Amino acid sequence: MQQKKIQLPEDEMIRQWYNVLPDIPNGIAPPLDPETMQPMGPEKLAPIFPVGLLEQEMSDQRWIDIPTEVQEILRIWRPAPLVRAENLERALGTKAKIFFKNEGVSPSGSHKTNSAVAQAYYNQREGVKRLATETGAGQWGSALSFATSKFGLECMVYMVRVSFDQKPYRKVMMNTYGAAITPSPSDITATGRAVLARDPDTPGSLGIAISEALEDASSRDDTKYALGSVLNHVCLHQTIIGLEAKKQLAMIGETPDVIIGCCGGGSNFAGLATPFLPDKLEGKPIRFVGVEPASCPTMTKGVYGYDFCDVARRTPLLYMYTLGHNFTPPGIHAGGLRYHGMAPIISAMLREGLMEAVSLHQLECFEAGTLFARTEGIIPAPESCHAVRAAIIEATIDKNEPKTILFNLSGHGLLDLSSYEKFSAGELHDYDLPAEAIAAATRDLPKV
Amino acid sequence: MQQKKIQLPEDEMIRQWYNVLPDIPNGIAPPLDPETMQPMGPEKLAPIFPVGLLEQEMSDQRWIDIPTEVQEILRIWRPAPLVRAENLERALGTKAKIFFKNEGVSPSGSHKTNSAVAQAYYNQREGVKRLATETGAGQWGSALSFATSKFGLECMVYMVRVSFDQKPYRKVMMNTYGAAITPSPSDITATGRAVLARDPDTPGSLGIAISEALEDASSRDDTKYALGSVLNHVCLHQTIIGLEAKKQLAMIGETPDVIIGCCGGGSNFAGLATPFLPDKLEGKPIRFVGVEPASCPTMTKGVYGYDFCDVARRTPLLYMYTLGHNFTPPGIHAGGLRYHGMAPIISAMLREGLMEAVSLHQLECFEAGTLFARTEGIIPAPESCHAVRAAIIEATIDKNEPKTILFNLSGHGLLDLSSYEKFSAGELHDYDLPAEAIAAATRDLPKV
Repeated sequence: MQQKKIQLPEDEMIRQWYNVLPDIPNGIAPPLDPETMQPMGPEKLAPIFPVGLLEQEMSDQRWIDIPTEVQEILRIWRPAPLVRAENLERALGTKAKIFFKNEGVSPSGSHKTNSAVAQAYYNQREGVKRLATETGAGQWGSALSFATSKFGLECMVYMVRVSFDQKPYRKVMMNTYGAAITPSPSDITATGRAVLARDPDTPGSLGIAISEALEDASSRDDTKYALGSVLNHVCLHQTIIGLEAKKQLAMIGETPDVIIGCCGGGSNFAGLATPFLPDKLEGKPIRFVGVEPASCPTMTKGVYGYDFCDVARRTPLLYMYTLGHNFTPPGIHAGGLRYHGMAPIISAMLREGLMEAVSLHQLECFEAGTLFARTEGIIPAPESCHAVRAAIIEATIDKNEPKTILFNLSGHGLLDLSSYEKFSAGELHDYDLPAEAIAAATRDLPKV
Repeated sequence: MQQKKIQLPEDEMIRQWYNVLPDIPNGIAPPLDPETMQPMGPEKLAPIFPVGLLEQEMSDQRWIDIPTEVQEILRIWRPAPLVRAENLERALGTKAKIFFKNEGVSPSGSHKTNSAVAQAYYNQREGVKRLATETGAGQWGSALSFATSKFGLECMVYMVRVSFDQKPYRKVMMNTYGAAITPSPSDITATGRAVLARDPDTPGSLGIAISEALEDASSRDDTKYALGSVLNHVCLHQTIIGLEAKKQLAMIGETPDVIIGCCGGGSNFAGLATPFLPDKLEGKPIRFVGVEPASCPTMTKGVYGYDFCDVARRTPLLYMYTLGHNFTPPGIHAGGLRYHGMAPIISAMLREGLMEAVSLHQLECFEAGTLFARTEGIIPAPESCHAVRAAIIEATIDKNEPKTILFNLSGHGLLDLSSYEKFSAGELHDYDLPAEAIAAATRDLPKV
C-alpha cells in the first residue's frame, strides 16, 4: 500500500521562516501614514505592534529564526500532515496526483494559529499584557485566544455581530481558551457606541470591528493590536506550511506542478506558495493559483493602488489589489474571504505575473467540499472549499494529464456546519458583482 | 527538544485486531434469547447483523485479520498520534508522564469511526444495502454516516430528539456524509408512532431510538442494524487504539503504569486497555481504570446480571453490570456515557478484579477539559473529559511519583461546545443518584 499521509518527523521541524520580500521582483511599495500620506516608518506603528513584529514586517533577511518558545507550541500540532487525496482522485477518475496540507489539525482548527502563536510570543516578550483583535468568521479570534492563553496574555476579541450571533460555538471556543469576546459594535469603545447610537440593530462589519480593536489597543498602555492576515509578518509566519510541504514532497520524490490556496487576506496562500517562489524564479514550471469568491473578486476585478485596511480609514495605506475600503461584499458563507483588500505580497506577485487568480462561485465550492468530505473524511471550512474546488478543476481539465497538484486545506468546517446546512437545503445562492458595483466601490480610493 | 507526538509510520499500521475473549478468566456468559431466555446462537441474530460480525462476536481466536478494504479507509487518519501531554504535566507540577491517544483526529471526530468502518465493510460484503442505527450524543451516528458513504451504503440514523434539537451540527455532519436522519421518536416506525401518540412532546430516549432502528432493520430485507458500543465485536474493532499505543510506547521505551478511559458502553476503554491485558496477566503491574459519571454509575453502583440493552426489551439479554434497562440517567452533558449497561467484556474484567472503576462528577470533568484545552490545545468531548480528569487525579495524588499514565482522548468536543458554554455560565450541576433510585431501577431486572 502506498503512503497516504506524509509525516515529517518532529526533529525535522522548520526552524526558520522564509521571508519572500527580498525575492519579489521590484519589491513592495511602503505603507503610507494615513495622516500625512507619506511613507511610514516602523516607529509610527510601534504603539500598535511590538518591535519584533515590525522588524519582520520590513525585513530584508530571507531567513528568520523561529524562536524556541514558538516552536515549543507549534509542535503541539506541527509538522502538519501532507496528505495524498487518493480517494478524491479515484472519485474524479483523474491521473493527477492531489496532495493537500491539512492545517485543520491545529488547536483552533485553521492555519491562523501559526501566526497567532508568533504574535503572542513577540508581544509577551516586550511586556505586553493584553491583545485586542477583531474577528469575522471566528478562525482568527479562536487562534489568538489559544495563543494568548499559552503566553499568559489577556485577549479581547471584537467579533462582527452577525457572525457572533450565527456562530455561537466560536464564542464558546474562545471563552474556553480564556479570551473575552464582545459582539461588535460594542458599547466598550467610542466607535462602537457611535455606531450603535446611529443604528442599534446593525449587523456589524469587519471594518467596524477593526476600528474598535484599534481604539482599544490605542487607549490602553498594556494592550497592543493583532491582525490575522494581509500584513507581511503574518504571511511570513505562514511560510512554515510551504516549507514543510517542500520537505514532505521531497521525501516521496514529488515536485508540484500547481500550488493552490484560497485568498481572503492572502496569508494561507502566501504561506503555502511563497517558499516555492525561488524555485519558480529559477525556472521550474510551477503555477501558483490564488482562489477568491466571485462575490468578492479583489484580485480578478479589483484595482491596484494604495488603500486603507478598514472602513474608518485609521490604518496605514497599503499598496494592494482592492475593491475599495467601503466595499461591502454580499454575505457569502466563506466569511474569511470577504475582505476588500489583498496582502501586498500576493498583490505584487499577481502584478508581476508570478501567479494566477481565479474567482469561483460558492455553490460549486460547497459541492466540492461535500465530495471531499465523503471521499477524504474531512469537512473543509467554507474558505478551504474554494481551494478544493480549484484543485478539482485542475485535476479534471484533462484527466489523463499526470500532474501533481498541491493545495492548502486551510481549516476544517466543524464550526461552520450551519453553512453546509443552508447549502444542502438549497438556501445558498451564487453572486456575481455587477461591474457598476465594483466601479462605484473603487471610485473613492484615496488620492495619494 | 523531546518528542511530543509519537507517530507510528503508516507501514507499521495494525493489521490484526486483538480479541480479548479467550484471555478473560472464566470467559463471558452467552447472550440470552429475549423470547426463550435461553442461550442464543448466532443464527438467531443473523437477520439483524451480518455473519462476519457475528463470527467476531463469539470468536475464540486471539487475532483477527483486519480486511485490506478496512485498512484502506482507516489509514485516512490512522495510525493516530500518541501524544505526550507535557504542557498539562507542567501545569500540574507533576513528575508523572501523561500520554494520550488522540482519537479526535478521525473524520467524525471520535474513536467510533474505527468500528463504523469495519461494520460497514462486513455489511456491504454480504450484500446489505442499508444500515439503520440510533445515536444519542451523535458521535456514533456521525461515524456510521461517514463509513457507509465510503462503502456506498445508505444509512438511516434515529437520533434522540432532545439531542437532535440541541446539537444541530451533528445532523448537518451526518447529512454532509450522505446519511438520512430523523429525530426519534419518529413517525417512520410503529414504535415511534405509538410513543408520539402517547406523548407528542417526548424528548425521546436511547431506548426508544434503539427500538426504532431495530424495527426498521427487521422490516426491510435490504437493511441491517448497527450498534456503536457494548458488543464484543465493537470492542474488538477498537483494539486498534491500544495496539497502536503499545507500539508507540515501545518506540520511546515507555510502559504504562495506569491506563484510563471513559466508559459509556465501554468500547473506547476496552479498545485502549485490553491489548495490555496479556501483559497484566503475565504479572506486569498495570492498572486499568474505567471512568463513569456519578450520575450513571453502572460499574460502581450497578448490579451484575442478565439485562436487556433497550427499554423495549427487544434485544438479547447480556450478562453485564447494569442499572436496569428502565433506568433513565439525569441529563448530564456527556450523552455518550448515559447508558444503563456496560460491555460484557468490561463487566467481566471488573468482576474478576482486573480493572478498577471510578465515578466522577461532571463539573470537575469540564474543569479538567478546560485546563486540557488551554494547555494541550484540544477541547475534549464531554465524555473524554472524564478520562482527562481521572488522569489528572492519578498524576497529582503524589506529584513526586514518576509514573506513566496513558489515557484515551476518545474524541474532540467541537460539536459539543454548547455544553462548555453551559459549564462556563455556571448552568451545569452535579448529580448523585440516591441509593433508592438505583435500588428501584435494578429491582425489575429480568428473571432468568
